Amino acid sequence: MTFRQTHLLGIEPLSPPEITTLLDLADEYVAMNRGPEKHGTALAGLTQVNMFFETSTRTQSSFEIAGLRLGADVMNMQMQASSIKKGETLIDTAMTINAMHPDLLVVRHPHSGAVNLLAEKVTCAVLNAGDGRHEHPTQALLDALTIRRAKGRLHRLTVAICGDIAHSRVARSNIWLLGKMESRIRLVGPPTLIPAGAADWGVEVHHDMAAGLADADVVMMLRLQRERMDGGFIPSEREYYHRYGLDREKLVHAKDDAIVMHPGPMNRGVEIDGTLADDINRSVIREQVEMGVAVRMAAMDLLARTRRERAQAG
Amino acid sequence: MTFRQTHLLGIEPLSPPEITTLLDLADEYVAMNRGPEKHGTALAGLTQVNMFFETSTRTQSSFEIAGLRLGADVMNMQMQASSIKKGETLIDTAMTINAMHPDLLVVRHPHSGAVNLLAEKVTCAVLNAGDGRHEHPTQALLDALTIRRAKGRLHRLTVAICGDIAHSRVARSNIWLLGKMESRIRLVGPPTLIPAGAADWGVEVHHDMAAGLADADVVMMLRLQRERMDGGFIPSEREYYHRYGLDREKLVHAKDDAIVMHPGPMNRGVEIDGTLADDINRSVIREQVEMGVAVRMAAMDLLARTRRERAQAG
Amino acid sequence: MTFRQTHLLGIEPLSPPEITTLLDLADEYVAMNRGPEKHGTALAGLTQVNMFFETSTRTQSSFEIAGLRLGADVMNMQMQASSIKKGETLIDTAMTINAMHPDLLVVRHPHSGAVNLLAEKVTCAVLNAGDGRHEHPTQALLDALTIRRAKGRLHRLTVAICGDIAHSRVARSNIWLLGKMESRIRLVGPPTLIPAGAADWGVEVHHDMAAGLADADVVMMLRLQRERMDGGFIPSEREYYHRYGLDREKLVHAKDDAIVMHPGPMNRGVEIDGTLADDINRSVIREQVEMGVAVRMAAMDLLARTRRERAQAG
Repeated sequence: MTFRQTHLLGIEPLSPPEITTLLDLADEYVAMNRGPEKHGTALAGLTQVNMFFETSTRTQSSFEIAGLRLGADVMNMQMQASSIKKGETLIDTAMTINAMHPDLLVVRHPHSGAVNLLAEKVTCAVLNAGDGRHEHPTQALLDALTIRRAKGRLHRLTVAICGDIAHSRVARSNIWLLGKMESRIRLVGPPTLIPAGAADWGVEVHHDMAAGLADADVVMMLRLQRERMDGGFIPSEREYYHRYGLDREKLVHAKDDAIVMHPGPMNRGVEIDGTLADDINRSVIREQVEMGVAVRMAAMDLLARTRRERAQAG
Repeated sequence: MTFRQTHLLGIEPLSPPEITTLLDLADEYVAMNRGPEKHGTALAGLTQVNMFFETSTRTQSSFEIAGLRLGADVMNMQMQASSIKKGETLIDTAMTINAMHPDLLVVRHPHSGAVNLLAEKVTCAVLNAGDGRHEHPTQALLDALTIRRAKGRLHRLTVAICGDIAHSRVARSNIWLLGKMESRIRLVGPPTLIPAGAADWGVEVHHDMAAGLADADVVMMLRLQRERMDGGFIPSEREYYHRYGLDREKLVHAKDDAIVMHPGPMNRGVEIDGTLADDINRSVIREQVEMGVAVRMAAMDLLARTRRERAQAG
Repeated sequence: MTFRQTHLLGIEPLSPPEITTLLDLADEYVAMNRGPEKHGTALAGLTQVNMFFETSTRTQSSFEIAGLRLGADVMNMQMQASSIKKGETLIDTAMTINAMHPDLLVVRHPHSGAVNLLAEKVTCAVLNAGDGRHEHPTQALLDALTIRRAKGRLHRLTVAICGDIAHSRVARSNIWLLGKMESRIRLVGPPTLIPAGAADWGVEVHHDMAAGLADADVVMMLRLQRERMDGGFIPSEREYYHRYGLDREKLVHAKDDAIVMHPGPMNRGVEIDGTLADDINRSVIREQVEMGVAVRMAAMDLLARTRRERAQAG
């Protein structure tokens, strides 16, 4: 099998053929999810545990539905009510769950690197559902699947990633993925929301939407992460929307058939015009959510296969 | 098939034969739930999502058990922890879930009409688990099943619905259902808790329990919805119990074999005397809970069948 | 069948052969949980409901995974969000759930005796997941399984139970179990944290760790239950650790092959030295968690079998 990972901690460790394998399998799961019988057995007999140290109804629901549809026993840990209150450390919590022999552990954590640390300690497959500003690999994979289905390919595309790059693990994972797949990446946003070192990432940096969107095939808007902006510059929503919010006037600079993306949840009228977000001729925001379930099914299925093969090999 | 609905938004749209079909099927599920093997496959391969914007352990548990027993993949959305906090609208939340291809969406919402609005936007079957003061159809169906099993019929019965009619979606759905099934309905309560227009609903209105309960076959007590009484008249509990709380003294006015009902959770000593509520010779309050699971199994089964038939028909 | 219980409310009612039967079956489930296919059908067609009136991620997760792996339909009640807020009593809540025909009801409650009270009212099997300072039977059973696997037997062992005995249901259940299995029990802790009547329980009482641990086969540390100490003596953590916290220096008094246990969650540096807790040559704390799932699977399986046999016998 092409896919040889035992964890999904980020896009960085994946090879282009591994990404392609995963997206190909996800395409099959899209078809299954659209059909009348949306339940398989790829994860039957396995236990999936979701540990979300940051709440995220959207991502957790997507992982939960993905696991249930593949026949896993799925358990959500109530981390807010957890032993952490009683003074237990992250590692103690993870080791406790690990002792219950889960097969798949889906983790979201507010600190960058926490999920990697945890993966070193446990014996099961770990899937990163977002850690701090580090990575959010299934989001990048679902974005890639959405783009590939809309554009027919992932290479030689111009993708403008716009807005709050500084606080976005979504941006980081997408930059890794699109770079590996040989697309051209532009980061567009105010200087305060683009990290100082971004120019060294092999991407173009723009502070003006017109230039940044010129001839883009894909316009990917990011959520303004006000909850992560502690102490620093916080733009007024009105000013931000005026300069960086996506509306039809700014979209005109992109290609005529450019697609509009957003990882959700959207702040309508801040990052994006509400009617544009709902325009099914341009916006693929709903498709992104749909692809999310399929990509997570594919990721868990492949991780389980890798582990099964390794166990059989001894 | 008699039942032709694709949503269960209220009792109002149902025809009498549809109600009968649903109750007949529910009777079968009562038998299954009482047996040693309480798991079927009517919803196998389907995904049920429970979205409760108002917490209700009782109703949510009933829907969850119903779905699990029919083999569905069941997911509870944690709405309190949800994206709504992050500024997402009801419709965005619903559309996001819809993009994950659920088959059945069970929704409770504090605003009347919110569930109908949502049903217009999504492609799956929507079940109203209570919306504001509007409808709570599965409650009325479980009440009807309880009555039919106790009395052998639903027509030509005198049913006294007592207490806080004004704030009760349970009352509204029961009035629809009992009216359709040709029972005689009396509303009994203080003038402040009976809506001004009630006299036009084809029901009798009484402000005195003795007159309201005279020769009743069924005495249905309602919960005093203090949490919905904002600013208006709030009766003292003692005074309320004295005049409108059901005890053996007041029950004497009803028929000798009249049954006592309450949708729960009860305020003992406010709406009803605690020992009367527990008297299995008169009270069918526990049966109501039991019927709840069966009625929800029947409703989800029938909605899934209708949708399957329509999909096959093209 | 040796096991004849219809509830698991405590260790007190169990006979030694019943304990042995349960641990033998749990050994089989340990093997299953370590294998690639960790899903059986012993509880297929049955409904398990978890009602935790005190949050406990660890214990609830263990019961949930146990039920899912045996094929039960498992539902967690959100008790914090429940009808109890609306004035419903414990018994009303239990009777409501009972009317939905669960087969297994797992209950944790802050009040001693609450779970026994509840078991008298419902028709399903009740498992006590900890009630006040009374009992926590599955914890004692998982401790026993851990000891039996490490030491090869449960009889003629010297077991030192150390720390906050006064507030510990874990201690109570372990004293019952180890006493029934003919082990020698020592309670070690400050006088303020050992109940006055403990000397009458057939155990040795020590206030000094050196004497208490002398030649012990098993050193079982307890969690300092600060949350249960209302008004009384609360030791400083530093002083407590100095006198009663387990470190290598104190452990020297026990047998060379003595094992170290803790029910978790641990307060590292209060009850136990962190590196000792993680030392896999001495500490079996992770094994305890692993045994927890297996013991709960065995307990639910046996209760279901007893009930099935009784139902068949008529």
